[in-house]
Amino acid sequence: MTKARTGAALLSLSLDRDGADTLQAQLLTQLRRLILDRMIAPGSKLPSSRTLAEELSVSRVTVSAVIDQLISEGYLEGRARSGVYVEAELPDQLPEMQSGAAPHVDQVRSDIKPEKALPSAPLQPFDTSSPELTLFPYRQWARHHDQTWRRPDAALLSRIDPFGWPPLREAIADHLREWRGLPCTAEQVFITSGVVEAIGLIAAVTLNEGDEVLTEEPGYAVLNRAVHHNRLVSVPSPVDQQGFDIKTALQMTPRAKAAIVTPSRHYPLGVTMPLSRRLELIEWAVARNAYVIEDDFDSEYRFQGKPLPAMMSVSNQDRVIYVGSFSKVIFSALRLGFVVFPKSMLPKVRSALPQIDQQASLMLQPVLARFMQSGDFAIHIRRMRRLYAKRQAAVLMAIKLHAADLLIVDPVPAGMHLVAMLAPDLQSRMSDTEAVERAKSAGVTVQPLSSFFVGPPVSQGLVIGFAGFSEEHLEKGVRALAAALRV
Amino acid sequence: MTKARTGAALLSLSLDRDGADTLQAQLLTQLRRLILDRMIAPGSKLPSSRTLAEELSVSRVTVSAVIDQLISEGYLEGRARSGVYVEAELPDQLPEMQSGAAPHVDQVRSDIKPEKALPSAPLQPFDTSSPELTLFPYRQWARHHDQTWRRPDAALLSRIDPFGWPPLREAIADHLREWRGLPCTAEQVFITSGVVEAIGLIAAVTLNEGDEVLTEEPGYAVLNRAVHHNRLVSVPSPVDQQGFDIKTALQMTPRAKAAIVTPSRHYPLGVTMPLSRRLELIEWAVARNAYVIEDDFDSEYRFQGKPLPAMMSVSNQDRVIYVGSFSKVIFSALRLGFVVFPKSMLPKVRSALPQIDQQASLMLQPVLARFMQSGDFAIHIRRMRRLYAKRQAAVLMAIKLHAADLLIVDPVPAGMHLVAMLAPDLQSRMSDTEAVERAKSAGVTVQPLSSFFVGPPVSQGLVIGFAGFSEEHLEKGVRALAAALRV
Repeated sequence: MTKARTGAALLSLSLDRDGADTLQAQLLTQLRRLILDRMIAPGSKLPSSRTLAEELSVSRVTVSAVIDQLISEGYLEGRARSGVYVEAELPDQLPEMQSGAAPHVDQVRSDIKPEKALPSAPLQPFDTSSPELTLFPYRQWARHHDQTWRRPDAALLSRIDPFGWPPLREAIADHLREWRGLPCTAEQVFITSGVVEAIGLIAAVTLNEGDEVLTEEPGYAVLNRAVHHNRLVSVPSPVDQQGFDIKTALQMTPRAKAAIVTPSRHYPLGVTMPLSRRLELIEWAVARNAYVIEDDFDSEYRFQGKPLPAMMSVSNQDRVIYVGSFSKVIFSALRLGFVVFPKSMLPKVRSALPQIDQQASLMLQPVLARFMQSGDFAIHIRRMRRLYAKRQAAVLMAIKLHAADLLIVDPVPAGMHLVAMLAPDLQSRMSDTEAVERAKSAGVTVQPLSSFFVGPPVSQGLVIGFAGFSEEHLEKGVRALAAALRV
Repeated sequence: MTKARTGAALLSLSLDRDGADTLQAQLLTQLRRLILDRMIAPGSKLPSSRTLAEELSVSRVTVSAVIDQLISEGYLEGRARSGVYVEAELPDQLPEMQSGAAPHVDQVRSDIKPEKALPSAPLQPFDTSSPELTLFPYRQWARHHDQTWRRPDAALLSRIDPFGWPPLREAIADHLREWRGLPCTAEQVFITSGVVEAIGLIAAVTLNEGDEVLTEEPGYAVLNRAVHHNRLVSVPSPVDQQGFDIKTALQMTPRAKAAIVTPSRHYPLGVTMPLSRRLELIEWAVARNAYVIEDDFDSEYRFQGKPLPAMMSVSNQDRVIYVGSFSKVIFSALRLGFVVFPKSMLPKVRSALPQIDQQASLMLQPVLARFMQSGDFAIHIRRMRRLYAKRQAAVLMAIKLHAADLLIVDPVPAGMHLVAMLAPDLQSRMSDTEAVERAKSAGVTVQPLSSFFVGPPVSQGLVIGFAGFSEEHLEKGVRALAAALRV
C-alpha cells in the first residue's frame, strides 16, 4: 500500500522539458515537495534510480544526482545493499520561505549591522549569521519541550546549581568527550547565554581590572568588545597561516594575563593551529600563570579528516579554559553556550558566583539536555555536516566558474563560511569595503575581511557564508556578486 | 454523570478527628488532591457549602474557609449567583514536591549566595527568589510553545528586528497600557534578557564612562553591580518613608547623569514614591538633561487600591526610561525582560545597536507573545495576585501570633515579600545578620535588610518572601523563626 502510494505520488511528477530550469532542478524541487508533503510516506523505500529514470524519461545520471542531493539534505537515506529510503524522522515541513532563502536572527558570529527596518526579512547569501534553519528538527524539539514542561520535574522548580541544569551539563560533557576528545566531567561545565557571558565569567574569576588579554587579529569583534566591557585591555596580535602565534604576540606585550584563541579553526580565516603552536602557547601560560581561553565555535562541522582534539585536552596544566556555543550547531535563537573550567579552578569559580548575574535561560536547558541525550542532536549535526560540505563545494565551484579572475579562495575543512581574497587586479581597483557595497546594491550580502581587524587591515577579502542557502541560491549569489564586482 | 462522579469523589473524603492536623487542613489537602487528580472533573460544580458541611459533618465555616482558600489558589472559581466550580483550565498536576515547598532558580531579586552543593533542593520559607511555580499554567505554556515551534512561521527564521520579536513587543505595549497606564507603542519596546542587559543597553545609549548614577540605598545589589560593570559610578542615596528623594540625592552629588529608582514599590522596603517626589525627580532630569530609569519589577501584584501609574506615563519630557521584567510575574527561568524607551530616543538606540551584543533568547519570545495575547498571562496574574494576598495575610497573622515581640511589620499593598524590622529588644540582642544565621540553623531562609545596603546599614530587619510557600508552610516558618530568635 505504501509502495502503491509512493508509485502514485511519483506519477504526479511533471517535468517541463522547455522550462527555464534544468530537468535536474525541476526533479529536485518536486521530489523534495512530495517528501515534505508526506505524499511519499516517511520510512518508505524509493524505486531504484533505473526505474525512476525510465518512468520519468530522464537519464539515470540526473536521477542519481537528485537522490544524492536529497540524501545530503537529510530527506533521503541510503542504506547499504538495500536501497534509498525516505527519512523516517523527517524535519517538519519547510516553512513558507521565498526562494529557499534562509534565516536569521542574532549577532552571534555576525558583524553585520542590523537594518533600520522593522519588518523581518529573509537573509540573502552570503550572510554568515546563521546555520540552515529550515531543516532544524522542530517537531522533535517541540516534543522534548513538551515532555519537559507539560509536567515539570520537581527538581526544575527547585533551587538548581548555579552552574546550570545538571543533565545538560552531563550531556555537554558526554558530547565533548565524544566529539572533541575532551576528557571533562559535568562538574566542570558551566552553562552560559553565549560567549559574551562566558568572557565576563572568566574575567571575574581569573583576571583583574586593566589586565592585558591577547586577542586574534583579525578576529571576532564581539570578543574584543567583551574584553573591553570587562575592564580588560585587549591586545590584538596578528595571526598568520598557522593561526595565532604566541611568539609574535609576546612582541606586542610581554605582560598579557590571558589569550583568547580559536585554535581548531581561526575565526574568520579558518586556519587550524598546529600542535607545535598549541604547545608553545600552553608553555607560555604555564610559565606566566596566564590562561588560554579556547573558543571552539563550530568545529563539529568538520567535513574532512579528523579534527585536532581541543587544546584543553592537550593540556594537563589547568591553564586552558574551553568556551563553546550552540549558536552554530543548533540554533542561535537558543542563546545557550558553556564554559569548561579546569577542575582546579572550580572552587574559585564557585566562590565568585555571588558577584555574577547569570543570563542563561533555565527554561531551555532541560529541553536541550533531552535533545542531546536522545541522539537527535548528533543526527542533526551529521545531517548538517553533509549538507554544508555540499554547499561549500557549490560555492567553490561557482567561484571557479564565474569569479576565478576576481576572488582567490581555498576550500576549508570545516565550518559554515569561506574567506575569499580579492585577486590582485580587483584589489587594484577597489577595497573590500567597496566590494561589499557594490555587492549590497546587487542584493548580495558579504562581509569585508578588513572589518575583522581592530587595527589597520593587512589583507582584503570577502567573508562568504554558505550554510544557510541552497546550492541554487548560492550559485545565483556568486553570479550576482561577480557581475557587481566587474562593473 | 459528572455530578454523580463529583458526589462519589466527595464521599471518598475521610477526615480524622483525632489527627494531628485540623479538620480544615485535612479537608483542604484532600479536596485539593481530588481536584488535581481529576477525581472531580474540571468545570464541574461543587455542592453548596451547606450540603458539603452536612455530608462531612463539619461546620459550614470550615467548609467555606477551605473553599475560599482553593479559590485563591486557583483550583476553584466562584461564579456570582451560580455557585462554586472547579476551574476548567486547571494548572497541571502539582509536581511531586515535599511539604508544599516551592522553588527556585536564579539570582534575580535574590541576593542569597548560591549553595556549594550540586543537588537541587526545594526552597525554604522565606526565600524571596521565586513566585509560586507549582501553579504556573505549564500545560498552556507547552501548547503555545508547540504552536510556535512545531512549524515555525517563516518570519521567525528570518532576520528579525534587533529590538525583539514584533508580536511580543506589541503584547508588552498592550499589557503596559492596560496594567500600568503607560501609553507606549510596540516600537518603543526593546526585549532584553533582564535588568542587567537593560542597564548595559541604557548605559551604551545614554551615558559615558565615569558618569555618576544615583541608586537607592538600600536597594537591589544586582543594579549596583550592573552600574559598576558598565564603567559608571554608582552613588547610593538613602531612601526614606516615601522612597527615593532627589533632594537628598543631590546632597550626595550634584553631577549625576541618571537615577535608577523603583517608584511603584521600593525594593526591598515596599514603599511607594508619591507623585510630588516623582515630579521633582522628573524636573531634575529635565533641568539637568539626566535620565530617570524606572525599574518596575512587580507592580502587577497589587492587592489593594489602584497602583499609581508608571512614572513614564507621568512624564511627557522624554527623560524616563522604563525597565520591566517577567521574572516575577511569570517565571524567572524565562530570562526575558524589556526596556521602554521614549520615542525621541529611538534613533539613538538603533544607531548604538551594532555595538551591543544582545542576550535575549528568540526561542522564547514568540511563546511568551502567544501566552500574553491569549489572555493566559492575565488569568495567571489575577490568580497569583489573589493567592499572594492570602499568603501575605497569613504571614502577618502568624507574626502577630508568634513573633509580635520580635518583629515589627506592616502590610504592603503589593508584591511578594515583606520587610520586618527587628523590635528594639531583639535589636539590642543581635544584628539582622546574626538573626539570619540563627534562622538558617533552624531551616528558615531570610535575608538581612543590612545586606541591601552598599554603605553602613541604617536599619536592621528581615526580608521575608511569602509568594512561593503555602499558608501552612508560612505559619510553620514563622514559628520556627520566632523560636530561633528567642533562643
